[in-house]
Amino acid sequence: MVEHYAPHLDAVFHALSDPTRRAMLHRLSTSERTVSELATPFNMSLAGASKHIKVLEAAGLVQRHVQGRTHICTLQAARMAEAQEWLRYYEQFWEERLDDLEDMLRAEDRAQAAKAKRKPAKASKTKPGTKE
Amino acid sequence: MVEHYAPHLDAVFHALSDPTRRAMLHRLSTSERTVSELATPFNMSLAGASKHIKVLEAAGLVQRHVQGRTHICTLQAARMAEAQEWLRYYEQFWEERLDDLEDMLRAEDRAQAAKAKRKPAKASKTKPGTKE
Repeated sequence: MVEHYAPHLDAVFHALSDPTRRAMLHRLSTSERTVSELATPFNMSLAGASKHIKVLEAAGLVQRHVQGRTHICTLQAARMAEAQEWLRYYEQFWEERLDDLEDMLRAEDRAQAAKAKRKPAKASKTKPGTKE
Repeated sequence: MVEHYAPHLDAVFHALSDPTRRAMLHRLSTSERTVSELATPFNMSLAGASKHIKVLEAAGLVQRHVQGRTHICTLQAARMAEAQEWLRYYEQFWEERLDDLEDMLRAEDRAQAAKAKRKPAKASKTKPGTKE
């Protein structure tokens, strides 16, 4: 699937383009967190953290629910599947490159091994009368 | 691998957050293209296309080389591997997302029910005559 105009992809990739937001998602992957818990490791104001969380919410990657006066955030990873699906199409291109590199290195190894063998292997070891 | 502070990830995800740039990458996946070839389907000025291509170059997703007066762009998909690797960590969450959501909601229900029970249940563990 190569869906260029999917509006989710815009929002998801945009949300993931920031290291703070990626770190927030990672922290949410181990447990749900309050907004202030998400803000703490970045020494960030609640307003600053909330701004990032809003971007994550807009992308559908985080859900926020209110318990009393506390805002609790949970990871919604499903939307990332779309992004990974989009990237999957391009695997063939980077895998090709890696295969090419591997082929090249193997060809070099074979050439070196053949070169090393050639010197002592020239003399015939076949005894008269032996059968293959 | 979950590498939050990888500068490549910022640039790659940012580059992918725009539908025009994603469409350009897709066109480059079938063949190398000049800047004007990339601009054409979007009815875009060369300057406009060039701006998008610069973002793709900065992310290492496109390489541009000059032949005479023509700028030719080629796809460099390898950098996407890093983004896909980052997303791979989250697969576990979306693959079981519905189960997770259900479990979470049930756990919340149980926690609330337990909390409600706990108040009167302090005196004796089992009330005579109660059944589960």
